[in-house]
Amino acid sequence: MTPSTEASAPERGPAPRAQVREVGLRDGLQSIAAVLPTERKIAWVAAAHAAGQREIEVGSFVPARLLPQLADTAEVLAFARTLPGLVASVLVPNLKGAERALECGAHLMVVPLSASHAHSLANLRKTPDEVVAEVARIRAARDASGSRTLIEGGVGTAFGCTLQGDVDEAEVLRLLQALLDAGADRVSLADTVGYADPASVARLFGKARDRVGDRLACAHFHDTRGMGLANACAAWQAGVTRFDASLAGIGGCPHAPGASGNVATEDLAFMLERMGIATGLDLPALLALRGRVPEWLAGETLHGTLWRAGLPRGGLVARPEPLPA
Amino acid sequence: MTPSTEASAPERGPAPRAQVREVGLRDGLQSIAAVLPTERKIAWVAAAHAAGQREIEVGSFVPARLLPQLADTAEVLAFARTLPGLVASVLVPNLKGAERALECGAHLMVVPLSASHAHSLANLRKTPDEVVAEVARIRAARDASGSRTLIEGGVGTAFGCTLQGDVDEAEVLRLLQALLDAGADRVSLADTVGYADPASVARLFGKARDRVGDRLACAHFHDTRGMGLANACAAWQAGVTRFDASLAGIGGCPHAPGASGNVATEDLAFMLERMGIATGLDLPALLALRGRVPEWLAGETLHGTLWRAGLPRGGLVARPEPLPA
Repeated sequence: MTPSTEASAPERGPAPRAQVREVGLRDGLQSIAAVLPTERKIAWVAAAHAAGQREIEVGSFVPARLLPQLADTAEVLAFARTLPGLVASVLVPNLKGAERALECGAHLMVVPLSASHAHSLANLRKTPDEVVAEVARIRAARDASGSRTLIEGGVGTAFGCTLQGDVDEAEVLRLLQALLDAGADRVSLADTVGYADPASVARLFGKARDRVGDRLACAHFHDTRGMGLANACAAWQAGVTRFDASLAGIGGCPHAPGASGNVATEDLAFMLERMGIATGLDLPALLALRGRVPEWLAGETLHGTLWRAGLPRGGLVARPEPLPA
Repeated sequence: MTPSTEASAPERGPAPRAQVREVGLRDGLQSIAAVLPTERKIAWVAAAHAAGQREIEVGSFVPARLLPQLADTAEVLAFARTLPGLVASVLVPNLKGAERALECGAHLMVVPLSASHAHSLANLRKTPDEVVAEVARIRAARDASGSRTLIEGGVGTAFGCTLQGDVDEAEVLRLLQALLDAGADRVSLADTVGYADPASVARLFGKARDRVGDRLACAHFHDTRGMGLANACAAWQAGVTRFDASLAGIGGCPHAPGASGNVATEDLAFMLERMGIATGLDLPALLALRGRVPEWLAGETLHGTLWRAGLPRGGLVARPEPLPA
């Protein structure tokens, strides 16, 4: 019998792997009014790590008056740094946030940029090129500090914008390159508001990989119109092996009306594993963690399907024969 | 700019089209305890036709004591036959049902077969090969009647089964061929219980098309574990251009614990249109029809995302440039 991923990833090696990066503690919690206590965040990070997650975005270094939900980012980060093998990342909107990330020893900092000028001004109060210039300053600060913290430029609203409408692909590609030229170590693409479809994902990720190769490091999808998993699959086919996701699909964007949650971590991990793509995740453990979210975030709208349907009979993978070495 | 479907369907012509077959009136309603009154079913069929749907499964010719929800199938079929250009199909589990379908002038009858022997016995009280033999009798009756009613053999639990677990791909392929050999005009594959993933869909639909070509006529996905749209996308890439779907994602299977709704008609249509694949559907009209379902089926769990998120800013297709002729 042929490996289960043969049809969808014909040019990949025989033991495909993907990384699911948890962003629920940042992208999820920032759009929820309730403040999750620090000890619960720490319990979440610990359980996610125990379930096999090896990259977690623990928060955002923004002023606490703007996002009180993330005011304890430094504490959560300090805990995350104690877990073996975990890449602890934070979002930083500017040089000031980056300086805190460097002080606190984040392994990775993600600098968001909106390809939509309208969304960029509403969300970041900067034009995209002003963000590029800030990345250059962040790179200089990183290099001056002697830190090894990675800088990832995350290009959001890459597939369209609720404020602006269409976003030009050529502009997205230009901004990816500009971020790298300014000193970002790698870049990612995000469908911030759920406008992407599998065809546009295949096309834009394909072009982006043609342009910047493996420095295109991550795909970030929201499930606003039900296509989160279909888009992740299309990105996988385009060569992406690292995906953002939120436990229970929490998330959104305060400046993007209609945006709903990220693709659910547990559903994405299940799809990948079911396709024969190893994620390193313990799905029953992940589902057990997911089961705690309704109590933590009582009254919030949660998402995802696997928590209700459960794992299929016969175990995780319908075809458990090992992939050839 | 290249056509939006270039990356996902590279060998397809420049003006791709797909057909979305509404099965909510059959697969949806059969798993809901409430009986939708005949006049509402007729209103549904009329509105779906007005929104551009050109194939609707209006019910099932089974004994009314088994499925009282579908007892008025003959009346709904009689109405559906009056609508110009509409292919009115019914499900028939056996020769007796097929005889009624022929009497009532259905354009198409779908004969379900479960590739899982356990599910077949539980759901149809026949082995798969007994169903194949019944198809031969149905074909003989059709030919004797002089009718042009098409016979579609629908192979369910093709990707696994909640009762049996794994289902062997070779057995699925054998049954597809056996149905055609017995006289079915065409065949389809169904993931009755939501066990498929994009890799297994690509593999099994690919093999099935290698085996029976365009006589593989339809893909039927449930959204039990959130992969309905991803699977439809994978089937499209494998060459499938006709998909079953249920308005508001209603549906399930009384003999398949954990099965949930079909992929939602409005979400599937949106994904296809967004990918540049013409469905002939008027999405605002379809969403307006979807908006009536909560009143019709008060208290039932409905599914789908587009009804909540709405169509994206800038219209249906983000890249409205016409595809080359």
